[in-house]
Amino acid sequence: MILFGEHAVVSGAAALGAAVDLRVRAGIEDLPGRVEISAPDLRVTLAGIAVDPFSGAILGNSIKEGAVHATRYISAVLKEFGARDLRVTVVSEVPPASGLGSSASVVVATLGALSRHLSLDLSLDEIADEAHRIEKSVQNGLGSPMDTALATFGGYQIVEGSAKLIDLPEMRLVVGFTGRPHDTRAEVEKVQSFGARYPEIVDPIFRAIGEISTRAVGCIRGGSLEELGRLFDANHGLLESIGVGTRELSELVYASRGAGRAFGAKITGAGGGGCMIALPGPGPENVLRVMTAIAQARGEPFSVVTGCPGLRLEDSADEI
Amino acid sequence: MILFGEHAVVSGAAALGAAVDLRVRAGIEDLPGRVEISAPDLRVTLAGIAVDPFSGAILGNSIKEGAVHATRYISAVLKEFGARDLRVTVVSEVPPASGLGSSASVVVATLGALSRHLSLDLSLDEIADEAHRIEKSVQNGLGSPMDTALATFGGYQIVEGSAKLIDLPEMRLVVGFTGRPHDTRAEVEKVQSFGARYPEIVDPIFRAIGEISTRAVGCIRGGSLEELGRLFDANHGLLESIGVGTRELSELVYASRGAGRAFGAKITGAGGGGCMIALPGPGPENVLRVMTAIAQARGEPFSVVTGCPGLRLEDSADEI
Repeated sequence: MILFGEHAVVSGAAALGAAVDLRVRAGIEDLPGRVEISAPDLRVTLAGIAVDPFSGAILGNSIKEGAVHATRYISAVLKEFGARDLRVTVVSEVPPASGLGSSASVVVATLGALSRHLSLDLSLDEIADEAHRIEKSVQNGLGSPMDTALATFGGYQIVEGSAKLIDLPEMRLVVGFTGRPHDTRAEVEKVQSFGARYPEIVDPIFRAIGEISTRAVGCIRGGSLEELGRLFDANHGLLESIGVGTRELSELVYASRGAGRAFGAKITGAGGGGCMIALPGPGPENVLRVMTAIAQARGEPFSVVTGCPGLRLEDSADEI
Repeated sequence: MILFGEHAVVSGAAALGAAVDLRVRAGIEDLPGRVEISAPDLRVTLAGIAVDPFSGAILGNSIKEGAVHATRYISAVLKEFGARDLRVTVVSEVPPASGLGSSASVVVATLGALSRHLSLDLSLDEIADEAHRIEKSVQNGLGSPMDTALATFGGYQIVEGSAKLIDLPEMRLVVGFTGRPHDTRAEVEKVQSFGARYPEIVDPIFRAIGEISTRAVGCIRGGSLEELGRLFDANHGLLESIGVGTRELSELVYASRGAGRAFGAKITGAGGGGCMIALPGPGPENVLRVMTAIAQARGEPFSVVTGCPGLRLEDSADEI
């Protein structure tokens, strides 16, 4: 999840991202003579599906847009290592195309499982690098190294020129999913084209966003949540100003701040759909209040903890 | 009406304002031995009222908040010139406390009427200066010279350091009133305090707003309305980022852009309530589309033309 700095980071502004406790689980088992990808998602749109990753031929029959989308990433990982004779099963708690880095998580989880299955012994650094390369190639050159690094290492990442891990305490946030998938490429291109036409307007906006990211780090470290909320609000307005807001996102943001009494709320990710995040007041009753406000504004709320662990090898195949 | 640059103008950023065809009419007649102020507003909240401007005692009985508010400005004008033995009647088409400069218009109209009644022969420059001084004193030091200058001279004013008239073509806009009066002082103080705490965030935001104002002038001059709409949207987001947005304003803005198919929409004035403005597509059907969208989002829409004449002496007292 991007907390601060989306879009502006492309132009060198500081950004802050966090791993959250929504997990993607990938398992691999032998399947002689075949390659199958199964992604029976339990959450939103992924459906059970089996695709030949090399020909692209669909082997299963329960196909939805989101699932086809996710398998493209899994196929790319398998192709990269020439993997055959296996079944990959991926289960995701992350809503696809929501701006929560579901694609990066799928790539990292698949890479982790494949590394163990083929005894590749990839290090976390190698997995993060490889995952970024693969995600970028599937997305025709688009893709933030932050998403794959967060899915790999967990915790928080600050980008200031380059990305690095930063030690900050966990936080409880509420995510509101609009139910509308977004198109990262389209949003990035829209912002870039606006910036190319009006650099004298967009450059200072990006500078302000970068300053917000930097100040936010201090607020999280010091536990100044009310102040952090104000920075959420400021960053949200700046995202609106570069054209990635939508009516639905705005409704969830205002519902969180109003009836939800959140300290602040903003779009997370590329915008144009996807998710917003809100910072609730302390205690479970305030988390519930924000979740209720988002649900009443026709969003899908879920509660997350930021700064959680990244890639983890688990032994129980049953958990998938 | 402020088109671009509200709040940022205080820090030296460029701003653009326009007179609109919502008129405040003031008439003065002799009333030996008494002073009466009558402000039977035909539009929103002003009610018929008579107040002793010197003691503040209420002479009439139909009192509402907005009316008491408006009479303070009228009283201040009368007091300035020691005017007695008269009845002032002010009728306003401008919703009070909506961020559309109703107070400035009331002061200018009253000054114009008083100048004729007492044969003071004030020039337009004198009226604009005097009106600014009076508005500011009533508002304890707050008050933009642009509001009073626009009410006096009409047309458009660009502020770049100092305010000056600028020749631009008329435009049709739709105003959406949230029905919520706003408190200019509170909004200005909120923004100033945010800027004092985070100059490194707010300075570039103000710089971006100033650039938008400058580019907007070229768009209005060249009739590039789609591009102008995009600048409305960008300025709106920047106003959200400094904390003067509200849920109601946002709903009217998104309704205008969505169902109303406006080229762009933004808060106008201090925010925190009051009005937003939208730039409709060409032709009366598009104006109607935006007005309908605003009404469906529970706003009060009205259509205005920007760049209209300012203070005007009329002979027919019947028109009041």
